Amino acid sequence: MAKPLAVVLLSGGLDSCVTAALAARDHDLALLHVKYGQRTEAREERAFRDLCEYFRPRYFLITEVPALKAIGGSALTDASIAVPEKEPDPRSIPVTYVPFRNAHFLAIATSWAEVLGAGKIFIGANELDFSGYPDCRRSFFDAFEKAIEEGTRPETRIRIETPLIHLTKAQIVKLGAELKAPFHLTWSCYQQEEKACGRCESCRLRLKAFAEAGLKDPIPYASPATEDI
Amino acid sequence: MAKPLAVVLLSGGLDSCVTAALAARDHDLALLHVKYGQRTEAREERAFRDLCEYFRPRYFLITEVPALKAIGGSALTDASIAVPEKEPDPRSIPVTYVPFRNAHFLAIATSWAEVLGAGKIFIGANELDFSGYPDCRRSFFDAFEKAIEEGTRPETRIRIETPLIHLTKAQIVKLGAELKAPFHLTWSCYQQEEKACGRCESCRLRLKAFAEAGLKDPIPYASPATEDI
Repeated sequence: MAKPLAVVLLSGGLDSCVTAALAARDHDLALLHVKYGQRTEAREERAFRDLCEYFRPRYFLITEVPALKAIGGSALTDASIAVPEKEPDPRSIPVTYVPFRNAHFLAIATSWAEVLGAGKIFIGANELDFSGYPDCRRSFFDAFEKAIEEGTRPETRIRIETPLIHLTKAQIVKLGAELKAPFHLTWSCYQQEEKACGRCESCRLRLKAFAEAGLKDPIPYASPATEDI
Repeated sequence: MAKPLAVVLLSGGLDSCVTAALAARDHDLALLHVKYGQRTEAREERAFRDLCEYFRPRYFLITEVPALKAIGGSALTDASIAVPEKEPDPRSIPVTYVPFRNAHFLAIATSWAEVLGAGKIFIGANELDFSGYPDCRRSFFDAFEKAIEEGTRPETRIRIETPLIHLTKAQIVKLGAELKAPFHLTWSCYQQEEKACGRCESCRLRLKAFAEAGLKDPIPYASPATEDI
């Protein structure tokens, strides 16, 4: 018998890969990748395609939100704003915050889930290490879930699953290792597409997480900033 | 002194035109048009551009959501599903419902409003004549407003204004006439781009509204279905 279907937002990064591995235990997958004009768009799409070969989903969809690049306001979508080479300050909103980005992703996931008849959307958002992104908090997902309830057909029931929301990045790495998640196919760097830079805030969080988990990150780095992680 | 800035979702149809005319009384405008692969996309974009010339907004943005066409599930985005030539049954969801469409529009409007510093988003949604669209109900906008509050910067305050939500279509026409809204520049037909078909559910609602308001619709019709409106 077929498993129930779940839409999984899969950027191609570490967290979404672990989320897909988790979802795959009990669901058939509809893997969704959204391009939004971010710096490493092409590399992330490649990671998504590689992960599709690995997960063999029932459906996959690559789409784009050109508005986020047109609107800008983030170091990820506006080349004139530099990507910081340090860990984000958890007390303020990082300049890599893309305004309300996850709402765009969830709107697409919801439309697709409603048409496919999927009852769950999985998203690998995480409050702890990225508490600076307001659209990565469970309170946002709760509110969005209510908007889904009000804004879709009466018979549509869609839950937003955020299994990583309260885990540390090191716990996510450990969980991924248990699930044999294909870390080698993922991409997290905000700046580079050949080798990960090792210096941007995303690389630093990732490297620190692998170090804390006592595991080696299998992807290639240009210059891991090991002096200060 | 400059008026406060408001983002207005402007499809180019009757309701959004009246909404823009209302918003323009007390706000500078940031007019937003979203293409989503709908049948009359090119004609609606022309209406938007004509309305921009009329309203002379401080900002305008034309963008697109290709996902809605890719996902389908609606007569407006899937050519294999016919547009009905009758008024929608208010007790069921019309086949012209585009799954969760307004959430995509509001996500874009919110990202833009946050970057521009606009405190309001105006949308010409209407519960009465289109109660069949779940994402046109005030309960949906209330829930989405909460998602905006949770998913944007702490200092961001954005309200969703739905001034037409409880009006009948005839009341909207009368209000537009009072505001001298440029009806002649608008487009509502779901099927045609040269002359409005006069027969699709959107044309029927529009013609009926003008008839009830005792006014003449200034746009050209190919064959108004006057026998049964």
